[in-house]
Amino acid sequence: MIKAGVIGATGYAGEELVRILYSHPMVEIKYLGTKSYEGERFSKVYGNFFNIIDEECILEDLDKFAEDVDVIFTATPQGFLGSHLKEEMLSKVKIIDLSADYRIKDVDVYEKWYGIKHESPELIKKAVYGLSEINREDIRNTKLLANPGCYTTCSILTLYPIVKEGLIDINSIVIDAKSGTSGAGRGLKTANLFCEVNESIKPYGVGTHRHTPEIEEQLSFASGKEVKLIFTPNLIPMYRGILATCYGKVKDGVDENQIKKAYEKYYKDEHFIRLLDKGVYPETRWVKDSNYVDIGFKLDERTGNLVMIGAIDNLVKGAAGQAVQNMNIMFDFPETMGIDKVPNIL
Amino acid sequence: MIKAGVIGATGYAGEELVRILYSHPMVEIKYLGTKSYEGERFSKVYGNFFNIIDEECILEDLDKFAEDVDVIFTATPQGFLGSHLKEEMLSKVKIIDLSADYRIKDVDVYEKWYGIKHESPELIKKAVYGLSEINREDIRNTKLLANPGCYTTCSILTLYPIVKEGLIDINSIVIDAKSGTSGAGRGLKTANLFCEVNESIKPYGVGTHRHTPEIEEQLSFASGKEVKLIFTPNLIPMYRGILATCYGKVKDGVDENQIKKAYEKYYKDEHFIRLLDKGVYPETRWVKDSNYVDIGFKLDERTGNLVMIGAIDNLVKGAAGQAVQNMNIMFDFPETMGIDKVPNIL
Amino acid sequence: MIKAGVIGATGYAGEELVRILYSHPMVEIKYLGTKSYEGERFSKVYGNFFNIIDEECILEDLDKFAEDVDVIFTATPQGFLGSHLKEEMLSKVKIIDLSADYRIKDVDVYEKWYGIKHESPELIKKAVYGLSEINREDIRNTKLLANPGCYTTCSILTLYPIVKEGLIDINSIVIDAKSGTSGAGRGLKTANLFCEVNESIKPYGVGTHRHTPEIEEQLSFASGKEVKLIFTPNLIPMYRGILATCYGKVKDGVDENQIKKAYEKYYKDEHFIRLLDKGVYPETRWVKDSNYVDIGFKLDERTGNLVMIGAIDNLVKGAAGQAVQNMNIMFDFPETMGIDKVPNIL
Amino acid sequence: MIKAGVIGATGYAGEELVRILYSHPMVEIKYLGTKSYEGERFSKVYGNFFNIIDEECILEDLDKFAEDVDVIFTATPQGFLGSHLKEEMLSKVKIIDLSADYRIKDVDVYEKWYGIKHESPELIKKAVYGLSEINREDIRNTKLLANPGCYTTCSILTLYPIVKEGLIDINSIVIDAKSGTSGAGRGLKTANLFCEVNESIKPYGVGTHRHTPEIEEQLSFASGKEVKLIFTPNLIPMYRGILATCYGKVKDGVDENQIKKAYEKYYKDEHFIRLLDKGVYPETRWVKDSNYVDIGFKLDERTGNLVMIGAIDNLVKGAAGQAVQNMNIMFDFPETMGIDKVPNIL
Repeated sequence: MIKAGVIGATGYAGEELVRILYSHPMVEIKYLGTKSYEGERFSKVYGNFFNIIDEECILEDLDKFAEDVDVIFTATPQGFLGSHLKEEMLSKVKIIDLSADYRIKDVDVYEKWYGIKHESPELIKKAVYGLSEINREDIRNTKLLANPGCYTTCSILTLYPIVKEGLIDINSIVIDAKSGTSGAGRGLKTANLFCEVNESIKPYGVGTHRHTPEIEEQLSFASGKEVKLIFTPNLIPMYRGILATCYGKVKDGVDENQIKKAYEKYYKDEHFIRLLDKGVYPETRWVKDSNYVDIGFKLDERTGNLVMIGAIDNLVKGAAGQAVQNMNIMFDFPETMGIDKVPNIL
Repeated sequence: MIKAGVIGATGYAGEELVRILYSHPMVEIKYLGTKSYEGERFSKVYGNFFNIIDEECILEDLDKFAEDVDVIFTATPQGFLGSHLKEEMLSKVKIIDLSADYRIKDVDVYEKWYGIKHESPELIKKAVYGLSEINREDIRNTKLLANPGCYTTCSILTLYPIVKEGLIDINSIVIDAKSGTSGAGRGLKTANLFCEVNESIKPYGVGTHRHTPEIEEQLSFASGKEVKLIFTPNLIPMYRGILATCYGKVKDGVDENQIKKAYEKYYKDEHFIRLLDKGVYPETRWVKDSNYVDIGFKLDERTGNLVMIGAIDNLVKGAAGQAVQNMNIMFDFPETMGIDKVPNIL
Repeated sequence: MIKAGVIGATGYAGEELVRILYSHPMVEIKYLGTKSYEGERFSKVYGNFFNIIDEECILEDLDKFAEDVDVIFTATPQGFLGSHLKEEMLSKVKIIDLSADYRIKDVDVYEKWYGIKHESPELIKKAVYGLSEINREDIRNTKLLANPGCYTTCSILTLYPIVKEGLIDINSIVIDAKSGTSGAGRGLKTANLFCEVNESIKPYGVGTHRHTPEIEEQLSFASGKEVKLIFTPNLIPMYRGILATCYGKVKDGVDENQIKKAYEKYYKDEHFIRLLDKGVYPETRWVKDSNYVDIGFKLDERTGNLVMIGAIDNLVKGAAGQAVQNMNIMFDFPETMGIDKVPNIL
Repeated sequence: MIKAGVIGATGYAGEELVRILYSHPMVEIKYLGTKSYEGERFSKVYGNFFNIIDEECILEDLDKFAEDVDVIFTATPQGFLGSHLKEEMLSKVKIIDLSADYRIKDVDVYEKWYGIKHESPELIKKAVYGLSEINREDIRNTKLLANPGCYTTCSILTLYPIVKEGLIDINSIVIDAKSGTSGAGRGLKTANLFCEVNESIKPYGVGTHRHTPEIEEQLSFASGKEVKLIFTPNLIPMYRGILATCYGKVKDGVDENQIKKAYEKYYKDEHFIRLLDKGVYPETRWVKDSNYVDIGFKLDERTGNLVMIGAIDNLVKGAAGQAVQNMNIMFDFPETMGIDKVPNIL
């Protein structure tokens, strides 16, 4: 049994994390840290926890948490962990950061895309990028885990085997991604009101979204060459779910079988990755409330395009679920413990 | 470990049941019975089960199931179990019926409101009405369990302590209930298309809905007097959830404290019933995906009205969850086993 | 051709008003007043107006507007007009107030339910309550029109003929109303975020909602006796629409025909009120985007309850549409001018 | 004043058409033709028309309609008009076909993608492809108008100036389109039920959707070269709206200004096409319920991609609205007559 502290427990990713950890057989939640709801009962902030977690939220305090728990999850805005983390903390506690602070290895790229100065660049190299299925061995041994973004988890996992095996032209990649609104968080913005989101779809951050360099860096590692791509996120009127539709031109002579084989090579034993049958494409409802990643593809021989489609639940595999999967790996628990739920279509 | 068979596994309540049973530590699902999808893989009918339950659905066959399993769930249209059940089956298998066939003790009332002839009226008296919190002891000993309806579970539990304690005028009860669309099932009707349900609310079956006599009969048992009431269901554009808003005129001299006490008397030790704080009213999202029942009330002294509001998830406490709660009681498993989930607001 | 100024043009009711007025053949919109978006192009605040109304919003200024236009619409929070209106303005301009400031004749009742001091109580008697179908003649001659609330328009019109004709027990009235989320306005509140509203229904202000005394006062005028009733509003996950389900005990001997006759007596020549056929109940989609009021009823002889159900579009008949209907009456334009749209189900 | 007959009036596109035509100052609707609702009052099929159009629907009969009306709209499944139209009808009546039967000039392509034999291939050359802004002059003189598809209208208009001016590599085009559910029609399919569509996004017909060859053929005409592209449609949980996100590699040296100029060259005087400001991208709510097309673009110099994004209302500009726009052109009415509505965000 380990003790956990959650910083940013009152956001949507935080709530999801608390919900998963509450039912995890090896975890006791010790602290619920918040910036906006200090002193409020957690069940007042989230009525679903009434009679379940009635403890008060406390002010987020990295130092204090580091003394008293075995693992800290930071579900905080960018810059929080980067400016609060000190190296010595890592001798006391393991940290799983759901923000972007330690995801990107090239600090210049981070500072350029995020528009903030990184306060602890020397710690970036200590961090492991927590895409569980790809970096499992490094995750096992790290104290500082950079949990991947939602769009990035979905996009990278969908493209990884194809890029790694060199089956598409690396300069032709287009990612058109669609996300439910929980990804926008619980902050107060007019754009997130029900009457603004409902019955509409909108693209945003076209070519400038911060998940772009994260995807590019990881795919460059896979490819061995520099990958640059265009990434367009869209907001759609639903709670949860991300669909990443990835396009690339196949190299001459590549056939359907090779593509299938590439996916199987990397994923056939992965519990949380499901390679769909030919002609079946992912729908977000099929992975809703679960840690699964569904992947399907279409080789369009008519035009030479390979369409690779992935779906995840942005709050689970795209945030809290993968964070717990990584925690399981880091603490040597069974990897699926506490997150092995059947998806919930309704 | 017991073996279970589900008849009607391919409807929405059936799917929910399969999902709960799949994760239940004491149950093995042996048969998935269907009328419409015979020979189809279950994961083809519900893509969320891909790689999880890839077995084929088989034709629903009560006799065969009765030979091979310990418990049969029938999530079927009205009339199925009534016309297929024979008394001798009950010596071999326990049956939990999610249809209305054995819920109403007065067969004339059943036949009048449902417009079908009951084919096995002699078995009605063998059935126990499975409102777990109210009839727990009888449930423990029955072989034939009539699992309550969704609207009825919510309405009866919300009204029960108040009616039982005689705090309102029994002739003044009004129930205005609102339900998500999964309650309408997966059948093909124009009225259930996305474009017909979305962005609208509609009342239906005003004063004639079949759940009316079920509520009346149970409340009459509680009251000791005949209860007649007006019940108006409404369909709203969401998946899951029922809110039952119940109105009654309080008897002279009844105060807020007495009402609070009445609820506590019956429910204070009930795990799945949460009595909300004063001034807090149920919202369906706070019980979503869970077996909880949230209850709040307002005594309006200005007009003498007591407003009692209850919320459940129609597919869980209103169908599959309560069915499993009843199974747990009938097989002497811990009552919350497999259904003790934190509600999921997103 | 008249000139109009809209104060509060950047809220949802304001936007609807601007949209209707823009297409009204007899109106030129001169000023778009705002509190929050001064100096912003209107088409920046509402992208649908791009290339249509690109004028800047200006600070709301009642005095200035009164000099330059023929009619001012105030779609503002409670208290704005009450504290800014001076009697002499009414000699220069007609005012249609979409707030509650002049709706309630009894200033004590206003101050108690709204919790604010009325700054110009002497003007209340100059105001006409603008329920177009009921007070048409008084509306024609007023300079100060108090445009009814959304819930109140729907509730009063649904109950009016029955109460006026004395067909139900005045002490038995229950109103259970459901509203789309645009009624909550465009203000920034966590409760109005997409992820909070979606997939849930919640009651609020049970027995304390401010529309209660407005309904009671008008029905008391109709009845000749003091009416007190319980009113429960609910928020549902859709944009537009209000359904008001009204319950009352019919007096002895009242039959269906009398009820039908009562509705026909008051409404049979009303263009915007549609009395549905027997057995048909209103659905909000059937009045969406229109100024229609649909009314249906069910006399439940089994219990003596009369269920009266009305539906409107909260932003049209419940706000901007009725405001324009009243403007048409006040300026002697054809009453349906600019608002005679077929409802839009999709 | 002209007389119109609508065949397929009881589908969603048909209903939209009837609603627009009902308010059109120069049109009288003479016949409402249906396959499924013969003899039913139109207001029974669509309750919004209660007290507005209570006439009965009649069996669809092209010959009879051709005798009695000036224009026939066919909002029917593919194959209906192709198998019923005879050349002599075109001397009596103008026909606007909302199906695909006469859209594609190359009959082999039609037969291959639609999988049906074309029964009147000789009439294809008589038809004009009714993309109003592109083919206005030909539309003016035709008797047989092939109204474009919804995805195609949005995709072609978004790409046309760029392809016509040769600014992108013709072999690099990717279209990722998203549509509301009304595009799927009112037919009874499990996949269109509320509980299947809500809270999910799904791609379908990846690389095989029938709108692909229609887009390719029109862009090939524009380009002068054969265009082949990959087209992926997605279904999202909303009523109305299509967003087409189009990607292409810009040719060397092409800059933002050239792209802007290209759009302005073709569209700057087009009433229904709005070229958004730099950095603003279309959202479907901004064109909802209107005939507008909003277009925005992003030149991503980092990767050489041009992202061109268009939004329409699938039922208006994507079906009924453009059909009426074409009717206006064909009958020499003002082109915007009856369809010049401000978009409705709520």
